[in-house]
Amino acid sequence: MQCKQLSAELAVEMNHLENLGEVANYIPELGRVDPDKFGLQLITLDPQRFSLGDAEERFSIQSISKVLALTLAFQLEGDKLFERVGVEPSGTAFNSLVLLEYEHGIPRNPLINAGALVVCDLLLTRLPDPQQTMLDLIAELVGTSAVGVNAMVAQSEQQTGFTNAAVVNLLKAYGNIHNRIEQVLELYYAFCALEMNCQELAQAFLYLANNGINPLNGKIILSASKAKRVNAIMQLCGFYDEAGEFAFKVGLPGKSGVGGGIIAVHPENYSVAVWSPRLNSKGNSYRGMKILEFLTTRTQSSIF
Amino acid sequence: MQCKQLSAELAVEMNHLENLGEVANYIPELGRVDPDKFGLQLITLDPQRFSLGDAEERFSIQSISKVLALTLAFQLEGDKLFERVGVEPSGTAFNSLVLLEYEHGIPRNPLINAGALVVCDLLLTRLPDPQQTMLDLIAELVGTSAVGVNAMVAQSEQQTGFTNAAVVNLLKAYGNIHNRIEQVLELYYAFCALEMNCQELAQAFLYLANNGINPLNGKIILSASKAKRVNAIMQLCGFYDEAGEFAFKVGLPGKSGVGGGIIAVHPENYSVAVWSPRLNSKGNSYRGMKILEFLTTRTQSSIF
Amino acid sequence: MQCKQLSAELAVEMNHLENLGEVANYIPELGRVDPDKFGLQLITLDPQRFSLGDAEERFSIQSISKVLALTLAFQLEGDKLFERVGVEPSGTAFNSLVLLEYEHGIPRNPLINAGALVVCDLLLTRLPDPQQTMLDLIAELVGTSAVGVNAMVAQSEQQTGFTNAAVVNLLKAYGNIHNRIEQVLELYYAFCALEMNCQELAQAFLYLANNGINPLNGKIILSASKAKRVNAIMQLCGFYDEAGEFAFKVGLPGKSGVGGGIIAVHPENYSVAVWSPRLNSKGNSYRGMKILEFLTTRTQSSIF
Amino acid sequence: MQCKQLSAELAVEMNHLENLGEVANYIPELGRVDPDKFGLQLITLDPQRFSLGDAEERFSIQSISKVLALTLAFQLEGDKLFERVGVEPSGTAFNSLVLLEYEHGIPRNPLINAGALVVCDLLLTRLPDPQQTMLDLIAELVGTSAVGVNAMVAQSEQQTGFTNAAVVNLLKAYGNIHNRIEQVLELYYAFCALEMNCQELAQAFLYLANNGINPLNGKIILSASKAKRVNAIMQLCGFYDEAGEFAFKVGLPGKSGVGGGIIAVHPENYSVAVWSPRLNSKGNSYRGMKILEFLTTRTQSSIF
Repeated sequence: MQCKQLSAELAVEMNHLENLGEVANYIPELGRVDPDKFGLQLITLDPQRFSLGDAEERFSIQSISKVLALTLAFQLEGDKLFERVGVEPSGTAFNSLVLLEYEHGIPRNPLINAGALVVCDLLLTRLPDPQQTMLDLIAELVGTSAVGVNAMVAQSEQQTGFTNAAVVNLLKAYGNIHNRIEQVLELYYAFCALEMNCQELAQAFLYLANNGINPLNGKIILSASKAKRVNAIMQLCGFYDEAGEFAFKVGLPGKSGVGGGIIAVHPENYSVAVWSPRLNSKGNSYRGMKILEFLTTRTQSSIF
Repeated sequence: MQCKQLSAELAVEMNHLENLGEVANYIPELGRVDPDKFGLQLITLDPQRFSLGDAEERFSIQSISKVLALTLAFQLEGDKLFERVGVEPSGTAFNSLVLLEYEHGIPRNPLINAGALVVCDLLLTRLPDPQQTMLDLIAELVGTSAVGVNAMVAQSEQQTGFTNAAVVNLLKAYGNIHNRIEQVLELYYAFCALEMNCQELAQAFLYLANNGINPLNGKIILSASKAKRVNAIMQLCGFYDEAGEFAFKVGLPGKSGVGGGIIAVHPENYSVAVWSPRLNSKGNSYRGMKILEFLTTRTQSSIF
Repeated sequence: MQCKQLSAELAVEMNHLENLGEVANYIPELGRVDPDKFGLQLITLDPQRFSLGDAEERFSIQSISKVLALTLAFQLEGDKLFERVGVEPSGTAFNSLVLLEYEHGIPRNPLINAGALVVCDLLLTRLPDPQQTMLDLIAELVGTSAVGVNAMVAQSEQQTGFTNAAVVNLLKAYGNIHNRIEQVLELYYAFCALEMNCQELAQAFLYLANNGINPLNGKIILSASKAKRVNAIMQLCGFYDEAGEFAFKVGLPGKSGVGGGIIAVHPENYSVAVWSPRLNSKGNSYRGMKILEFLTTRTQSSIF
Repeated sequence: MQCKQLSAELAVEMNHLENLGEVANYIPELGRVDPDKFGLQLITLDPQRFSLGDAEERFSIQSISKVLALTLAFQLEGDKLFERVGVEPSGTAFNSLVLLEYEHGIPRNPLINAGALVVCDLLLTRLPDPQQTMLDLIAELVGTSAVGVNAMVAQSEQQTGFTNAAVVNLLKAYGNIHNRIEQVLELYYAFCALEMNCQELAQAFLYLANNGINPLNGKIILSASKAKRVNAIMQLCGFYDEAGEFAFKVGLPGKSGVGGGIIAVHPENYSVAVWSPRLNSKGNSYRGMKILEFLTTRTQSSIF
């Protein structure tokens, strides 16, 4: 991969892209972000790296955190995790209670809200301080301990998060939540309110391109087999009901968040983080999707 | 890839695998197959190749044909095809009418029955003799014209295929079928009743590992970009409501059929066809899934 | 009931009602009707009777025929009928396949299309010529043999009735249709295409107000208990997803048809037929609903 | 109605009925009731009255309270109430979130849990102390102020009521709950935990047989038209997904509760309360349904 030329081409493309869609504004803290922010960071295993735009500005990573929570749970539980949450795409909008009801409280996968709530419940059972364990994991992956939780965002989301409260209560009714509902929601929203920038995100997810090994220190985060499985889950479930579209057009495992961030991974090759706050109708970053499509088309680096 | 050693290891594993599940028997012609048949064919782009077991015995490829029909439609229509059928995983059993009703007649993807029926309708509109065009495509891909349709299988399936008849009528009610219902069903069942063996299947699908180019003669079947997209659709939608499980455990784009066949593709590397008639509870070959999991674990060739 | 005064008041009200909604036009034969037609016929058991407006003009009774078909099936099968069709309201639009799929081919009740198709199937199994038996029943109830089927309407509906064809195929897939699909649809559409006027309809349904006895000749059509049960089914299931609204505002057992007709029954008191072709958004006659609400409010004759 | 003979016949029948089904035991307080309790009270407007069995023993009226809550809300809001809750039967199990999601937070009717929660929310907005207002209403209807709430039952239900918590959160997410969730649930469970005996219940509901007028003091509880509408809602929605079965077999407007109570009303004639704790598979009193079917068959007093 010729990073120098690629970075120039991406910079041109980023200037030309229309900026459509709406910024998430269900809490004031998210709605206040500048909608024209646009950052990108790519890191290869070679290693090469380049930043574009607002790659050093932190934003709310929101659902991208679900992959890191899944990583912690997979470390602790192995395949037993999948007795309480599936690995199938949901085929419906991200917060649907319908499937949950028909499937008796087993969420479709760990990257929809219902599944992430079960993952949080499991971390609460297994860890004395799961929020600190998450921060430690990120610090190790990024190489600094600068990343933190925006408590105001977490609180705001919890206060207005009635659909998630509905979901976790329904899960509890089916016996798939073991801790107190308030604790589960609190941890869930703390993870959503993690703030990272594109540089940190791309670095943090590089282990998924590197067979589960943290390239900074050679430590095993997940076994190669488990890392592949996390990538498979991202590919099939990482973009709500636009997972097929993302596979079709971009062709990389990835995960989006309503803060406008997207992380994507090319196994044994690179990770890339983008950030642009305006979302398309499916809740994924409008320009983020476009620039990643341009990237993999230009570099022919779709995994397919 | 060391094919010699791999072939030996696979042969051992194939001997050890339990043979669980049931042979599809909704028509007598399918139920009469020997449930202990087990064949495998792998072909690399190097090229290397090896066969195991009953790799030369033909069987009913059933839904595997949907990928070839999609290929023909994608050649003819390009992206316009996706105005009439989506690219998202269905998240439900393969013959569900529920999603179709909620989504007003646009099937989720071209690899579920509803989507394949729309693809057949489109081929009927665009081609004078779509069944012959399909046979020509297969002949070109395989290098011989030996492959044909088992008319008795096609007829039996059509006579008892009330769910598919319900689906195509509902599609017609939504205006997404333009030809006569009988014609569409006839073509659909002809494709399902194609009979191929593992050698022919692995050869026929090698273009999807080869950026869309037929390795036998260098002709472009699909552009590189379109071939990647077909692979992405297979990855997300190729195994009914077990697509996530297949991605999670095997990690290759692929497609199964109720005849017990599975085709899988490792882009820029190899294609592999397996056949074992007993199906698991999701309708996919029990031993076929297991042996492919063994293959990609052993060779670390999951695309993730 | 003071019929003289009531008839005068109803005549005034009929002049004042707005005529909103759309005439059913999915086949040309239905769309050609004059949208301003408005007829009413009331017959008490005393007996008194009066007609208003276009009460002598025949129209397509459509789904109103489902009650007569249910009557025939109930005569033949008794409670065994309810092993193949339920008595619960559907809670969804009249042609939904969703419930059918979740409930494995047992239609919710005999007054939705799916249930009426099962009833037709049962009549085909039990009767040599069910269409003639239906005409004989109506002739006996009305006192003349003038009522017939409009073959052109039946044929037009069958040619464009893809949703019903989907429903009957799905029923057949679940084993709840025993005769050939074409036969079942043919009988179903013949019943829909029966043409009666308000006078004939009110007379024909008077047995349901009379404990199951035909007041013209004293013959038992249904036992008192069975007649009550047909009324109960009409009350809960007679108006698609507006059954609650009709019970709430009108308060009588009844059945509507997309031809704009409505029949309602006040047990041990009277029957009333109205006809006005424009339909509200739920598919029930706009003015028909309004005038019946006026009638039962004015006479305090809701059964509740 | 010959109450003397009827009471003798009912007494005989009550001795002969099998006692099948299970006592509700999701909270210990409900599970501890003697499953063989069986009481009945009938009161006519003549007036005549008779008691059988355990008619003076109080039990948890549970969902029967929803009709009284609806009465209060209908008094306060009139038809505006039906902007926030429908009048259609739900067609599914009593606690389904599915319909709620598809219908964007408007519950199907006020007698399913979701609808009753909206009614409670409305009462909280309009009344300073809705629980006291409910007790006052019951005291006026029954003629004594002996009826109260079992606080332990209310508390137990609230602590384990995760499905209702899911429902009210989802309603809040759709904007159809205006007060705090905890308040709404607290009021809801207080109503469920009302304890009355058959004598009190039959007396309390007699206004619905009496055109809305309390027969004890002649005061108007609801207008005649509103009382009829409450009866219509009971008829269509009073028995979860067994409403059709109850209309079909019993033929009276009524409401059941998981405590084993059932109230039914014959407009302008009588009210009847029964209590037998074992529930059938749909959650309605097994013997209660049977004895009411016997009653209306024997007296030919179905409203149909």
